[in-house]
Amino acid sequence: MSTTTGARSLTIGLIPADGIGREVIPAARQVLEALPKDALPAKLDFLDLDAGFEYFQKNGVALPEETLAALKDKCDGALFGAVSSPSHKVAGYSSPIVGLRKKMDLYANVRPVISGAAATASGEKRAIDMLIIRENTECLYIKEEEQGSDAQGKFAVAKRRISEFASRRAGEMAFSMALQRDAMRQQLPLAERTWKSRPKVTIVHKSNVLSVTDGLWRETVRGVYNGNELYKNNVDVEEQLVDSMVYRMFREPEAFDVVVAPNMYGDIISDGAAALVGSLGLVPSANVGDSFVVGEPVHGSAPDIAGKNIANPIAAIRSAAMLLERTGYGSAALAIYRAVDKVLEAGQIKTPDLGGKSTTNEVTDTICKLL
Amino acid sequence: MSTTTGARSLTIGLIPADGIGREVIPAARQVLEALPKDALPAKLDFLDLDAGFEYFQKNGVALPEETLAALKDKCDGALFGAVSSPSHKVAGYSSPIVGLRKKMDLYANVRPVISGAAATASGEKRAIDMLIIRENTECLYIKEEEQGSDAQGKFAVAKRRISEFASRRAGEMAFSMALQRDAMRQQLPLAERTWKSRPKVTIVHKSNVLSVTDGLWRETVRGVYNGNELYKNNVDVEEQLVDSMVYRMFREPEAFDVVVAPNMYGDIISDGAAALVGSLGLVPSANVGDSFVVGEPVHGSAPDIAGKNIANPIAAIRSAAMLLERTGYGSAALAIYRAVDKVLEAGQIKTPDLGGKSTTNEVTDTICKLL
Ligand SMILES: CC(C)[C@H](C(=O)O)[C@@H](O)C(=O)O
Ligand SMILES: CC(C)[C@H](C(=O)O)[C@@H](O)C(=O)O
Repeated sequence: MSTTTGARSLTIGLIPADGIGREVIPAARQVLEALPKDALPAKLDFLDLDAGFEYFQKNGVALPEETLAALKDKCDGALFGAVSSPSHKVAGYSSPIVGLRKKMDLYANVRPVISGAAATASGEKRAIDMLIIRENTECLYIKEEEQGSDAQGKFAVAKRRISEFASRRAGEMAFSMALQRDAMRQQLPLAERTWKSRPKVTIVHKSNVLSVTDGLWRETVRGVYNGNELYKNNVDVEEQLVDSMVYRMFREPEAFDVVVAPNMYGDIISDGAAALVGSLGLVPSANVGDSFVVGEPVHGSAPDIAGKNIANPIAAIRSAAMLLERTGYGSAALAIYRAVDKVLEAGQIKTPDLGGKSTTNEVTDTICKLL
Repeated sequence: MSTTTGARSLTIGLIPADGIGREVIPAARQVLEALPKDALPAKLDFLDLDAGFEYFQKNGVALPEETLAALKDKCDGALFGAVSSPSHKVAGYSSPIVGLRKKMDLYANVRPVISGAAATASGEKRAIDMLIIRENTECLYIKEEEQGSDAQGKFAVAKRRISEFASRRAGEMAFSMALQRDAMRQQLPLAERTWKSRPKVTIVHKSNVLSVTDGLWRETVRGVYNGNELYKNNVDVEEQLVDSMVYRMFREPEAFDVVVAPNMYGDIISDGAAALVGSLGLVPSANVGDSFVVGEPVHGSAPDIAGKNIANPIAAIRSAAMLLERTGYGSAALAIYRAVDKVLEAGQIKTPDLGGKSTTNEVTDTICKLL
C-alpha cells in the first residue's frame, strides 16, 4: 500500500474474469510494468484475483470473499476484465462486476468517450470529447426481483431504486469533473480545444414517465448544482430524456461535455457512445468510490474472439491509466494516454475491430515501446 | 364504423395533443383526404379529440374520459400527435399517450425504421429495413412508484413488471410480422431485397442483470417461437443485451430484421434507430391492440419549432398509412408510402430537420399531389 515516507508502492489487484478479460488485463499489466521509473515513481505489485462466470461454474460463487478481502486489505486499486453472461437462467449466479461495485461502494462509473474524428449518424466526422458519469450502485441494479402469478399467468417484478444519497454523489462527481476538465482545457490554446464553451453537465432521465424516481434524480442533481456557487457560476446545466439523449448523441455528439445518468441509462448510453468512436475496444472506465478505484474496459468478454490474441487491449490499457490518474499518478497516466493516441493516430498497428490485422500482443508491445 | 354491407366508412379520431402535434396531425388528415376513391374505397370521417399537457394545464386532466369514450364508441382507429413534458414535477399529471396505450390495450408499438441509405457510425451508407416491436403496456411504464426515506435521506422505488401474458403477445406480434415481411419480400426480385436471408427476430433484454424479469421475458418470447412449427421452420431467432443492441445497431444496422423489446428498451432503441435514418421526423409507429390501432409519430412535441410551419409531417403521414394498413386498407397505405418515398428520393422538398427549407404545408401538398 502507499506510504507517505520512503519509496511508495502501488498494489493492483488483477481480476481478468472471463473471455478476452484474460488477454486484455495481462496486456494492461504489461504496459504498467513498462512505464519508466521517472513516470511512475512507485514500486508496482500485482495480485491475481478470481471472479467471473467460469469461476462460478467451477466453484459455485462468482465473486469470492477472498477476492473482496484481498482488494480491501492489500490493494490500492484494481483492474477488472469482463464477465460472460449465462445464456439461460442459472440459479445462484449474480454478476460479479455488479457485486464488486456495490460491495466496494464504487458509486460512480466514469466513462470518457474521446475521438478526434468520430463518424456520426449523419455521416460527418466530428470531434467527440464526452465524459459519462454513470451512477453505479442502484437503479435496476439493486437486483430486487420477485416472481408471482395471477389469472393471466406468471409475472415478475423488479424494483428500481433511486435515492437522494446516491444521486447527490453522482451529481457531485459530474459537476466537479466538469470543472476539472475545464481547468485542463484552459491549458490548451483555444484552437486545440474540442469543447470551446463553458463546461456543461447534461442530466439524463425519463421523468415524463418515472416522475417519482427520475423526478427525485433530476431534482437532487439540480440541487447539487443550485447549492454550489462555484458550479452555478462556471458550469451550464441541461436535461435530456434518455430516448432523446440517444438520438441526439448520434446526431450531434459534439453537443455533450459531461453527461450524468442513472445506472441503466448510463449503461446503454456508454455502449452507444462507444459505437461513435469506432469500437467498444477503445472505451475505458473507472469504477470510482471515495477510497477505491477499479479500472474496467467498457467492452464485454467477447467469447467469439476469446483466446485468439486479437482482442483490442486499448480499452483495458486506458482503464489502467484511469486507475493511475485516480491513485495520484497523473503523469504516468498521461504517458499511457499519449502512447495509445500515437498508435491510433499512426493507424498502422490495429486489431480487427478497427479494421486491422494486428494481434493483442503487437498493439501492446507497440504501446510499451512508446512509453 | 366499418360495416360489411354497402359503402364502408372509416372514422378516425384525431388527437393532436401538444406542440407540433397540432401541425403534423392536420397534415396527415389532409393526405388521407387527398386519397383517390379507388385507393381508399371508404367514406372518411374525422373526430377531433382532446388530450395533452396543455389540455391538462387548463382542465386538470391529460386524457379526458370523453376522448376515451369517443375512441371506443365512435372510431375505427386514431392518430395521436405528440405530448409535451412538464419541466418539473406536476402533481396529478400522467402522460396521456402512456394512458391511452394501456386503457385501449394497445399492447404492441410497431416501429418500422427504413432507409435506402442510412449513415452508420462507421460513416458508410447502408440500407436499413428494421421493424421494432415494443411491448407497450408494462415494464417501468406501469408507473407504480413510491417514496420513502431512511437514515441517508429520501429515496423512491419504481416497479418494473414483466408478465408472461404481455411478453407472449409481443412475441407473437414479432414472429408473425417477421413472416409477413418475408412474404412481402418474396414478391420482390432478390436484387431489390434489403434483407436477403431468412427472416430473423432479435430478442432484446438485460437478463445478465435482471435475471428474473428479463429472464421471464426472454423465456416467454423464446417459448412462442419453440411452440410454433411455422416460426421454427421459417424464422431465425437471436438475443442481444440492450447495451450491445444499441452498439450493434449503430455499427451494423443491416444485421437486424425484426427486433422485439420490453417497453423502456424499445423506447430507447427506436429513438436511436431514428437517428440512423436521418431524422425522428421520418419514423412512424402504430400502437396496436387486437381491436384498435393508434398511429403515432415517434418524435416528440418539439416546442422549440412548434407553430412555425417547419415540422416534418412525414412521420405522422406514415403513421396514418400504418393505421390504414391495420384497418384493412393496404393499397391506400401503399399509395401513401410510395408518394412519401418519391418526395424523399427527389430530395427537393424537405423540412429543415432534413437540411431543407420547405414548410410543413409544402411537404404535405407535394405528397398529396403524388397520390
Ligand atoms: C456485464 C454487465 C453486468 C455490465 C453492466 O451492465 O453494468 C456491463 O454491461 C458494463 O457496462 O459494465
Ligand atoms: C412521451 C413518452 C411518454 C413516450 C414514451 O416514452 O413512450 C415517447 O417517448 C414515445 O416513444 O412514444
